[in-house]
Amino acid sequence: MTTFSDIAPQLTHQEIELPSWAFGNSGTRFKVFAQAGVPRTPEEKIADAAKVHELTGLAPKVALHIPWDLVDDFDKLGAFAADHGVRLGTINTNTFQDDDYKLGSLTHPDAAVRRKAIDHMLRCVDIMDSTGSRDLKIWLADGTNYPGQDDTRSRQDRLAESLRVVYDRLSAEQRLVLEYKFFEPAFYHTDVPDWGTSYAHCAALGDRAKVCLDTGHHAPGTNIEFIVMQLLRLGKLGSFDFNSRFYADDDLIVGAADPFQLFRILYEVIRSGGYGANSDVAFMLDQCHNIEEKIPGQIRSVLNVQEMTARALLVDADALADAQTSGDVLAANQLMMDAFYTDVRSDLADWRASRGLPADPIAAYNASGYREQITADRVGGQQAGWGA
Amino acid sequence: MTTFSDIAPQLTHQEIELPSWAFGNSGTRFKVFAQAGVPRTPEEKIADAAKVHELTGLAPKVALHIPWDLVDDFDKLGAFAADHGVRLGTINTNTFQDDDYKLGSLTHPDAAVRRKAIDHMLRCVDIMDSTGSRDLKIWLADGTNYPGQDDTRSRQDRLAESLRVVYDRLSAEQRLVLEYKFFEPAFYHTDVPDWGTSYAHCAALGDRAKVCLDTGHHAPGTNIEFIVMQLLRLGKLGSFDFNSRFYADDDLIVGAADPFQLFRILYEVIRSGGYGANSDVAFMLDQCHNIEEKIPGQIRSVLNVQEMTARALLVDADALADAQTSGDVLAANQLMMDAFYTDVRSDLADWRASRGLPADPIAAYNASGYREQITADRVGGQQAGWGA
Amino acid sequence: MTTFSDIAPQLTHQEIELPSWAFGNSGTRFKVFAQAGVPRTPEEKIADAAKVHELTGLAPKVALHIPWDLVDDFDKLGAFAADHGVRLGTINTNTFQDDDYKLGSLTHPDAAVRRKAIDHMLRCVDIMDSTGSRDLKIWLADGTNYPGQDDTRSRQDRLAESLRVVYDRLSAEQRLVLEYKFFEPAFYHTDVPDWGTSYAHCAALGDRAKVCLDTGHHAPGTNIEFIVMQLLRLGKLGSFDFNSRFYADDDLIVGAADPFQLFRILYEVIRSGGYGANSDVAFMLDQCHNIEEKIPGQIRSVLNVQEMTARALLVDADALADAQTSGDVLAANQLMMDAFYTDVRSDLADWRASRGLPADPIAAYNASGYREQITADRVGGQQAGWGA
Amino acid sequence: MTTFSDIAPQLTHQEIELPSWAFGNSGTRFKVFAQAGVPRTPEEKIADAAKVHELTGLAPKVALHIPWDLVDDFDKLGAFAADHGVRLGTINTNTFQDDDYKLGSLTHPDAAVRRKAIDHMLRCVDIMDSTGSRDLKIWLADGTNYPGQDDTRSRQDRLAESLRVVYDRLSAEQRLVLEYKFFEPAFYHTDVPDWGTSYAHCAALGDRAKVCLDTGHHAPGTNIEFIVMQLLRLGKLGSFDFNSRFYADDDLIVGAADPFQLFRILYEVIRSGGYGANSDVAFMLDQCHNIEEKIPGQIRSVLNVQEMTARALLVDADALADAQTSGDVLAANQLMMDAFYTDVRSDLADWRASRGLPADPIAAYNASGYREQITADRVGGQQAGWGA
Repeated sequence: MTTFSDIAPQLTHQEIELPSWAFGNSGTRFKVFAQAGVPRTPEEKIADAAKVHELTGLAPKVALHIPWDLVDDFDKLGAFAADHGVRLGTINTNTFQDDDYKLGSLTHPDAAVRRKAIDHMLRCVDIMDSTGSRDLKIWLADGTNYPGQDDTRSRQDRLAESLRVVYDRLSAEQRLVLEYKFFEPAFYHTDVPDWGTSYAHCAALGDRAKVCLDTGHHAPGTNIEFIVMQLLRLGKLGSFDFNSRFYADDDLIVGAADPFQLFRILYEVIRSGGYGANSDVAFMLDQCHNIEEKIPGQIRSVLNVQEMTARALLVDADALADAQTSGDVLAANQLMMDAFYTDVRSDLADWRASRGLPADPIAAYNASGYREQITADRVGGQQAGWGA
Repeated sequence: MTTFSDIAPQLTHQEIELPSWAFGNSGTRFKVFAQAGVPRTPEEKIADAAKVHELTGLAPKVALHIPWDLVDDFDKLGAFAADHGVRLGTINTNTFQDDDYKLGSLTHPDAAVRRKAIDHMLRCVDIMDSTGSRDLKIWLADGTNYPGQDDTRSRQDRLAESLRVVYDRLSAEQRLVLEYKFFEPAFYHTDVPDWGTSYAHCAALGDRAKVCLDTGHHAPGTNIEFIVMQLLRLGKLGSFDFNSRFYADDDLIVGAADPFQLFRILYEVIRSGGYGANSDVAFMLDQCHNIEEKIPGQIRSVLNVQEMTARALLVDADALADAQTSGDVLAANQLMMDAFYTDVRSDLADWRASRGLPADPIAAYNASGYREQITADRVGGQQAGWGA
Repeated sequence: MTTFSDIAPQLTHQEIELPSWAFGNSGTRFKVFAQAGVPRTPEEKIADAAKVHELTGLAPKVALHIPWDLVDDFDKLGAFAADHGVRLGTINTNTFQDDDYKLGSLTHPDAAVRRKAIDHMLRCVDIMDSTGSRDLKIWLADGTNYPGQDDTRSRQDRLAESLRVVYDRLSAEQRLVLEYKFFEPAFYHTDVPDWGTSYAHCAALGDRAKVCLDTGHHAPGTNIEFIVMQLLRLGKLGSFDFNSRFYADDDLIVGAADPFQLFRILYEVIRSGGYGANSDVAFMLDQCHNIEEKIPGQIRSVLNVQEMTARALLVDADALADAQTSGDVLAANQLMMDAFYTDVRSDLADWRASRGLPADPIAAYNASGYREQITADRVGGQQAGWGA
Repeated sequence: MTTFSDIAPQLTHQEIELPSWAFGNSGTRFKVFAQAGVPRTPEEKIADAAKVHELTGLAPKVALHIPWDLVDDFDKLGAFAADHGVRLGTINTNTFQDDDYKLGSLTHPDAAVRRKAIDHMLRCVDIMDSTGSRDLKIWLADGTNYPGQDDTRSRQDRLAESLRVVYDRLSAEQRLVLEYKFFEPAFYHTDVPDWGTSYAHCAALGDRAKVCLDTGHHAPGTNIEFIVMQLLRLGKLGSFDFNSRFYADDDLIVGAADPFQLFRILYEVIRSGGYGANSDVAFMLDQCHNIEEKIPGQIRSVLNVQEMTARALLVDADALADAQTSGDVLAANQLMMDAFYTDVRSDLADWRASRGLPADPIAAYNASGYREQITADRVGGQQAGWGA
């Protein structure tokens, strides 16, 4: 039987990148509820992310979103981050908020619009050169709302051409990570709707093109851990966007909707070499805290991933292999469930304390005075959100 | 066999209420794309709706949304509508865009917030008294994002209490119409998520409480026409919000995603007495034209409903009853399909022309100069949208 | 904080009825895999169910399915059960395996077929009189495969009439429990597809008509615990059919697919008075063990329900109410998760041992020799299955 | 504008392969309803299929399922088919009905079981050599019901190895066509659940490995026509299994559930070169006629495909390209809808008559006496079904 002390050394490998935009305001098409103390600048977002890392030891990197996090001097922003104990991470492109992109970006029928979108991405690679970021993450809102609105086949060809230009600009240490999404904001077809499409494009592009799996971007009932396994088997899993959902792309706190699914995903990650020092899979959050507080929301999220990673590491691999080989369906399933039902919270609290971290990061945050400080300090100005 | 001339007289009964907000800007949480010529005032919205009615003869009423369409003098607004050939219709409440409603409105744990939401609805009934509207339509964004966030049972009880206050304020000619929605903007639970919940509340309230069925507000795979039939059988179908969807609540043009579903819905409406001079079921559109033009989008929508109503009327009821009684599955289905596949477009064009309407309302709109006029006139000011 | 010893007394109330058919062979339309030692008679099924109860103390009743479990002398069968330490429970009707029911049973267009189905149900009530069963459970396969195949409105009316005859036959201590199901075996419409339909019929029938909620019978994404709460609120939750599913009505072991969902369901049951000495809600399993062993599959299932009931009882109700009242979304959710993540397995093993039960019922079964005995004894004859 | 006479010449290319098993009994796990006149032998199935072709001119080939259609002498069976005016087509493998396959076939943990499944497939290729069939179609029921039951990664590796052996046995004119399916009969994971997985395996195997797209094998809401387009773009669409569904894999008559979806699928087929003399895409039906008559069910099905192909051919490609290029969303969509709503039934009846076929094949079947003949002749013996 595997115990917590057996698996504790592996926990030190865990790094979960935080999205700068999780600290800004977010909402639905019906309403964005503003919160007190929300950052107004990239620096303030980084400060908040650094606070999460300080209290958990799990989140040493901050992913940026361009142009939301555009600054004049990214070297300086990198230094600011370093001063706060974190690093700049993945650069996320945004080709969905300019009026020109109403009918598409990399797939748009008009070559001038495609060029504009490509140029935006090339500019993002320039930023990566400054920040030392490895990954350019591309999520496209491209798609159509009505059958016939555009020719989906031509859009695929245009997509392939556009991605090629961007891919060829990358340095040997940089990667292009292409995210897929079942639907939204397009409501009839999406140009990269499933892992198969992302995989086909990445396979055509080359070794440094990888797939990004956002856990909320699948059809109802999809077995996500199977896709994780398959992409790892094919050598094409680049990164995760973690969140959870009951319905569509709800962007709730990871592990909140179906914790057992998160367990199964992490089990497959570990099983197929996607976790640990030798893996290049990036783990990120991509969430919205529409109604709950954002900083403790992010703390809760990274803790959820850590707790579930510990549970997944606890699966007794040898016993499981025996049960699987002998076709003992109930015993094999029970070994999974035993790991899932093991309460690791107290062991993790001790482990954190042993590493100089707060045993209870949420309580530590509540006691830190940080909330009160940012609420007092961040008055006036334009709060960050998806629109800015 | 039933022919177009047999059913033409029944087409004169058709009235489809237009939502004032369909003429304003709309979009997704990612982006709202503005359009030229979008109305800035309730009057301009009404003018646009009136243009749709002028060209189709199908849309004599405009539904208002409060506070989006709040004016100082509703009598004057009614006169304005009359001058343009239309009437004011259903009053839609909005208890989801005030900061106080972040955790609910009629179901909120705090009695003061509930009172505020109730007061808003009472004010809407005051407006109905002015406008002569029959229906108060209540769609609630109330729900929670996380298990445990609030007590769902208590919320039901509070909902029942709040609705009672509103219902009791209605006059004998007024109705409360309670809409249900599967999810969004709440992502764990919604307080009125299904027809059963709306029905249970309406049954408790009284005869003038009815259910609003929005065709986009169901779980994947739901047989909507069955619900239509059931609500008509139970005497509780108050109104339709028409739109279409491939995924969630996409709010696409009615009939665009699954025209055969629209056919089946209208067949059940007709079958169970929900259509025609003796029915009190209200037919409304509730759509977003995020990327397509709004006025022709509404014209297309009412034409889609009309065309499909004609097809549904064409079902040969006697032959169908025979096939059903004899258990001839293929023959019965074929009778439905025969009506659905009958091309009524040319007959409808003739019928329109015979009534002094344009044979092709879309072409008539394109030729009317109205688009150019509003684009030129409506410069400056604040374009209408969900936020205003 | 609530501890295991606080809630242990409440665990004694738990009774989970076992379905006789879970011990017979089952499968999919593609293949039914036979297993060794499968019962050939109602008596052998009862013996297997009694073994589950002997080892767990959780399953004192066996639900019968008529005609699968038809015997000449039900008094004798009851005595047989009593000798084995269990009682006969719910009587399940079967109106889907006779050729006459191809196009429906209680809803069939032909009055003679409806009468046949009604007579079957009346015969089931006769059996209830013999067995002392309280509940007549009606699940109908009735529906259609093609639009137009039959008139859904007339079928509702015929359903209401048929149910009335059956309901009126019940004694004052007996109940009619009407199950709903989203789809299967009918693939276009189902006559009782959702809780709303079952509720409307039960409300019309009277106080002793209740709804049966099968956890696998919903559209994708449906919030089942909401329905549990609503039916309890309306006084109409009669019974549960427990199982789990990833896709359609998979009939997997309860708690296997989404354990957190089972937790939420049981939380709502407890919250609204559906659990305990004063509740008349019946808890049953309705599962298929297509590939896993059946007796340990049933043991695992009742243990899953017990473990999750314990976790649900552990929710700190006072703290939760405080967090909900103050609108602290994260804290409220955390209180739910804390209970869910509490590992009750060891405490439950001790509790079982303290009551003279095996600490590990699965291990006890494996050591009991029962498997070897039935494999040796039950040779020849016709193994029980859905067809017999 | 495109007219029927413009597109009529293209209709002559249409060939739709009939599945032999559509003429046998089929049903659900609840009940298989037998029908009169059902074939008892492969020859009788072929005779029925030939009748469909005789009346429609659309179905010159019959797909066989091994071992359901196993005969001693396939040359003789081929001659029998030729005598009846049809040819033997795709050979379908069956590795899901032997007890050994309970936990998998090509993916089974036990090498001996894998070898047995491979040998079955090699035997099928031997049959193809006799029948002159081009395609070996492999649909696997392989999967698991419970998390942990088997190692999904190892199963992929075993699948790749097994397929390689089969693929290498093919002659230069033969193809391996790998079908995917979302779920069923496995209820947790399926080894080939999506087009991406099938594509990845086929890409690894070689040029003569292709994907089979069954229209009923997708998650709810999946945009199937997008997958059609993508597979054609990637050169990997091997064949279609046509049917329709409202819920899961309902296997209803193609076009019955969502005719507009069938239109969109056929539009993309035509758009990307999958239809016509130069295409090697195979079009098959794969349906169950559980409650309706089988022969007219197949006639209705091929007519549905033909009617929808005609509509899809009617799309005005030039006007559509113009509207798409100019970004006129409403006009582009309208061009699709105009084709869809064109009533081609009467033109097709004339076209059929002009080619010596019955104008109304269903009526011709009813008048033919064939039903009465087979009902009289096929008495006794074992009716064909999925089990035989």
